[in-house]
Amino acid sequence: MKIDVQRTGGFTLPGEAGHEELTLRLAKTWGADVIRDSDGTELSPEILEAGYDIYSTICIIREHNDFARSHPECLQQTFLTTSPALAAGGALVIDPMQEFFAEQFRLNDTAEALAYWQVWDRTAGTLLPAGAWQYAGGRVTIPQPEPFHSYTVSFLAWRLWEEISMYNHVTNNWQKEHLMPIDPRLPQAQEYLYNWLESWCKSHPNTNVVRFTSMFYNFVWIWGSSERRRTLFSDWGSYDFTVSTKALKDFESEYGYALTAEDFINNGDLHVTHMPPTARQRDYMEFTQKFVAAFGQKLVRLVQGCGKKAYVFYDDSWVGVEPYGPHFAEFGFDGIIKCVFSGYEARLCAGVPTGTHELRLHPYLFPVGLGGAPTFAPGGDPTRDARGYWCRVRRALLRAKIDRIGLGGYLHLVEGYPDFVQYIADIGQEFRAIRALHEAGGPAGLPLTVAVLHAWGGLRPWTLSGHFHETYMHDLIHVNEALAGLPVQVKFISFDDLARDAAGTLAGVDVVINAGRAGTAWSGGAAWESAELVAALQKWVYEGGVFLGVGEPSALPGHGDYFRMALALGIDRDTGARVCHGRWQFEVKTVPGLLPAGSGVEGLPGLYLTDGEADVLQTDAATGLPTITAHRFGKGRGVYLSSFQYSDANARLLLNLLLWAAGQPLEQPWLSDTAGVECAYYPDSRCLLVINDTEEEKTARIATPGEPLAVTLPPCGSRIIEL
Amino acid sequence: MKIDVQRTGGFTLPGEAGHEELTLRLAKTWGADVIRDSDGTELSPEILEAGYDIYSTICIIREHNDFARSHPECLQQTFLTTSPALAAGGALVIDPMQEFFAEQFRLNDTAEALAYWQVWDRTAGTLLPAGAWQYAGGRVTIPQPEPFHSYTVSFLAWRLWEEISMYNHVTNNWQKEHLMPIDPRLPQAQEYLYNWLESWCKSHPNTNVVRFTSMFYNFVWIWGSSERRRTLFSDWGSYDFTVSTKALKDFESEYGYALTAEDFINNGDLHVTHMPPTARQRDYMEFTQKFVAAFGQKLVRLVQGCGKKAYVFYDDSWVGVEPYGPHFAEFGFDGIIKCVFSGYEARLCAGVPTGTHELRLHPYLFPVGLGGAPTFAPGGDPTRDARGYWCRVRRALLRAKIDRIGLGGYLHLVEGYPDFVQYIADIGQEFRAIRALHEAGGPAGLPLTVAVLHAWGGLRPWTLSGHFHETYMHDLIHVNEALAGLPVQVKFISFDDLARDAAGTLAGVDVVINAGRAGTAWSGGAAWESAELVAALQKWVYEGGVFLGVGEPSALPGHGDYFRMALALGIDRDTGARVCHGRWQFEVKTVPGLLPAGSGVEGLPGLYLTDGEADVLQTDAATGLPTITAHRFGKGRGVYLSSFQYSDANARLLLNLLLWAAGQPLEQPWLSDTAGVECAYYPDSRCLLVINDTEEEKTARIATPGEPLAVTLPPCGSRIIEL
Repeated sequence: MKIDVQRTGGFTLPGEAGHEELTLRLAKTWGADVIRDSDGTELSPEILEAGYDIYSTICIIREHNDFARSHPECLQQTFLTTSPALAAGGALVIDPMQEFFAEQFRLNDTAEALAYWQVWDRTAGTLLPAGAWQYAGGRVTIPQPEPFHSYTVSFLAWRLWEEISMYNHVTNNWQKEHLMPIDPRLPQAQEYLYNWLESWCKSHPNTNVVRFTSMFYNFVWIWGSSERRRTLFSDWGSYDFTVSTKALKDFESEYGYALTAEDFINNGDLHVTHMPPTARQRDYMEFTQKFVAAFGQKLVRLVQGCGKKAYVFYDDSWVGVEPYGPHFAEFGFDGIIKCVFSGYEARLCAGVPTGTHELRLHPYLFPVGLGGAPTFAPGGDPTRDARGYWCRVRRALLRAKIDRIGLGGYLHLVEGYPDFVQYIADIGQEFRAIRALHEAGGPAGLPLTVAVLHAWGGLRPWTLSGHFHETYMHDLIHVNEALAGLPVQVKFISFDDLARDAAGTLAGVDVVINAGRAGTAWSGGAAWESAELVAALQKWVYEGGVFLGVGEPSALPGHGDYFRMALALGIDRDTGARVCHGRWQFEVKTVPGLLPAGSGVEGLPGLYLTDGEADVLQTDAATGLPTITAHRFGKGRGVYLSSFQYSDANARLLLNLLLWAAGQPLEQPWLSDTAGVECAYYPDSRCLLVINDTEEEKTARIATPGEPLAVTLPPCGSRIIEL
Repeated sequence: MKIDVQRTGGFTLPGEAGHEELTLRLAKTWGADVIRDSDGTELSPEILEAGYDIYSTICIIREHNDFARSHPECLQQTFLTTSPALAAGGALVIDPMQEFFAEQFRLNDTAEALAYWQVWDRTAGTLLPAGAWQYAGGRVTIPQPEPFHSYTVSFLAWRLWEEISMYNHVTNNWQKEHLMPIDPRLPQAQEYLYNWLESWCKSHPNTNVVRFTSMFYNFVWIWGSSERRRTLFSDWGSYDFTVSTKALKDFESEYGYALTAEDFINNGDLHVTHMPPTARQRDYMEFTQKFVAAFGQKLVRLVQGCGKKAYVFYDDSWVGVEPYGPHFAEFGFDGIIKCVFSGYEARLCAGVPTGTHELRLHPYLFPVGLGGAPTFAPGGDPTRDARGYWCRVRRALLRAKIDRIGLGGYLHLVEGYPDFVQYIADIGQEFRAIRALHEAGGPAGLPLTVAVLHAWGGLRPWTLSGHFHETYMHDLIHVNEALAGLPVQVKFISFDDLARDAAGTLAGVDVVINAGRAGTAWSGGAAWESAELVAALQKWVYEGGVFLGVGEPSALPGHGDYFRMALALGIDRDTGARVCHGRWQFEVKTVPGLLPAGSGVEGLPGLYLTDGEADVLQTDAATGLPTITAHRFGKGRGVYLSSFQYSDANARLLLNLLLWAAGQPLEQPWLSDTAGVECAYYPDSRCLLVINDTEEEKTARIATPGEPLAVTLPPCGSRIIEL
């Protein structure tokens, strides 16, 4: 079957008033069907009326500074806490705001808010009774502290500057007014925002799609007063910025118990998404999701009632939206847009139950990138950046259908970068070809289902918390990134799923992956206290499953084994209590074809074989300790990697380990023999799509049901072969 | 004052029957005044009557196989446990002995012993009731285990082969009968051993000194059935090998509560000396020490009553002796002998409250060393080995007086190694010169007192558990080794000392060192739950003390800080819960002269500055994280090192940090300007002793109250300069 690839469509271009000729020229070059505005740009009538669909970005909770000024009680809030202060003699006086960025935060010292403030003796770990401290004039005084104990003040603060506005402001040296975030939890704010959106829709007849950026609450981004430590905290998944006295009171009414400052402050750790959530935290998240979905639904219906579509941006103020959560369907969104650097983010987008899935590619058309490195500025190479990101994203597009791609930012910046303009045109065409394959019928996959097990499970698949470069220190994001482009089925399961119905959750699963550092949400922490969990997984492996652990899988202190799945894995880690225990001698075992050239993972100290029966497949050159092992356990296997770093070779290593451990052959139709060259076969169109993920020319042999195919691809190239 | 150095004395030579000429010739060459036998050698009448003092080794609990065979109930015992076994369907049958070396252990399945056996469900962490398992014919059967739970059997075993005999047997390929260890806890064994020693003393009129090797109970050394893992467990300080049903019953009578198998087995971890001891473990240790001292005193008095001296060897069967413990004086020993590889072991020996302190130098006169590398065998270089050990030991001899040195093993092995014979003669003469300086009056020290804080404190100063090469993975042994040769006062304090009397314990202390991995006996683990401890140390530092932390000092999960002394240190470690928290930027600060050339320590992931005020003195090249920091805290300082590795440069680094943090000048009289060149001034003899710890010629400038001295020393050389 011949695939018909259109030359236009599925592409969203960021237009820019004042650059109309450029906008319309590039719309043609890139095959755009939609033109959008961006934060900081506008579209002129010449663009709006050029025959393209128009898509407008709205961050509903900002750009209302007049309202915010007249309704300061409607500003968004958060809990903050001070660093521990030492009581070295006499009364202790603490300025709660001292460490925080004054342009972002202001003390909320209303009587209502003060009732939620807490002062802790962090040396003793005790909460001070209300009478043991006083607040006045921006200062907390503890008249009689315990000598040489340290104290913290947890308090509510108003948020004065919407954080994405703050970031863009600083990055792009904006001088305009700071945008204040409004909390729709308050009825007066809700009413105002609803009316505002209604009039906005009426006054924007050209807009076909309203893109919400996103809903109401930003991920947490706390800035400090010192330029030597501007970011105090940044977490893409935590809910601190949804807090208000009204939310706390509503929660108490609904759930029958009250949350305190410490439920958010958590010893100063806050609730990092990488750590297992508490039951109270989960309650509060559910509570917030219900609210966001309820008011969000009203806004979406309003937009749709005006004849427009409503998309949501899966970034920025996404907190409470949870596109994989139980309340997402209630919004009724027509589509979702995800900003992507990596393959796993494309899968994250593709799997959301909504109509249209669009990727916002990088680099953004900004002078500098997220890390501050130049992009469209001297020293930058936006084409190289675009190619690098696209090669990571494209792998995932082989496996899952995405409907649209696009860019964001200031279009005029591409002038002077003709190679970038051409490369985006090439990407657009390549994307449309891949989409056409999916539209004709999905790719053939291997009969192998992987379940990634962690604390968040299916609520938060693929991502850990933010982008790859923000989470690279966690093994699991490397695993997820590898899985994103592999021809296997992937699902994400939680410890709660297993507690509820282990057999049902594991039905049809070939490999369970548990990957992460001890105590984290990814390895599971205290979830492993459950003997039922351990027994259920031991049973499942013993009867033929594969448990693949990375780093400190199932790790939990306080038992004889540190990895609670050590019996299946055949390997465990000594954290000090077994330093006097003998170790098994072993020889490295070679399994032909299993470890691709250049594959290998970093070591971890303290690893030891438990029963001496595990096959050691690779060792750390420096320490001689095992890095990759496999252990027969009944009819199943425990496979262990001391860590995992995403690379072309390691992605293939992971696939090989999955196949081998599950008892499947390493050579199968539609697998390439070369790391970095991947392919997908689309049976309905009888097309084979082969991609080169690397910056080198590659020649690979692709196994087929008949004769193998030899394919040579230029760096980062791809080819569709009709069979 | 002229120091008079004798040409003989203070040297114990291992004689060997059949090599009389060699024995007497070397006794002269090496300046020996004492000739000893060794495990595996005897002295002939020609040697015994040559005019030397004779010193005989006795390991009182072995060499009594006839008695052991006729009194099998007197064999020593231990608790053992199996690895977890999976219940994969139906009854579970476990062979307790399967993993253990059958020549070392035999099941104790007497009715009395079986009452102490335990079967645990290690998946659930529950003890099975007595009726839930049966024992018969060497097998434990659990008829109805929980499916897919794992089970262990903890049991008592007789010990059939005294472990040092077992080791020497295997190392030297002995073919003679295995020696069985007898437990003097049983009255019939006590009576037998007392009578045996009495007759031994009478039949050995030439013996002047009886060296006990050591008392009754060996350190724990459990061998396995597989040659791929011969050593299952080895700990120099744990008390497992003192266990018997009688000991358990006596303990219950005396302490009012019963110990169980799990008090020893501890989830299979056993009680590694590197981990904090439990209260029950401390009770049992005290109980055992009292017994060992009581019967030991009888034996010592018997020996002394025969006109001989009684020395104790501070190795091998030393368990229960605890030379720094409260019962050591009760033995009434005349001296102690310590086998040494390192400086800290010389200090360990020197500080024991007894008359004569003797070092057993390495290498032993064995074909191979402890690690199996050749010594007096092809490929070996015993002179190089001796020089390496001596250079480590000699540093400590500058600071603390040792009375004697000596060798052990088979003397005939030195034939063919004339350079070794000469080097030992040189060592003997150098030792006698150093001893003469001490005898004239001790060395000048810096006015600086260091207290090393750990769970064992003064009960177990200097050592961690065994030799340096057995404990090199712990930062503290490197710190102790450095301290062993530094001109500072050193004491060892425990958390119990601080709980009892923090002010008294810290009086006169300038620097408290806490060094080790989280959760260990060395950093302290749960001891840091005490708010009183934290507050007391915070107060002490704030008022002018120095807290020097290494690795994970004061680390404890569950608080906002991981290092509980983070407020003083100004640095803390993120274990995952703070991965989303911002980090302070910093620049490296240079303090002139503080960091010697070549000094530096290995990094540790996750370190971050707390208040941003710490001076970062050095960073890890790979990660950029701090490795050495200093933080002002009131009038005192917190100093932090991410790890510590002993080297010439790092020993001086530590001294410099101690001086600088305590506010003392880096240049002072009797300090050299060169790492690896150390010195001590003995005011009473007005002698300066300068040593070169390195394998290179060194020229150093030594500061004095007047003009500095320039000294050039050959590799490993030393010089005494009269001033």
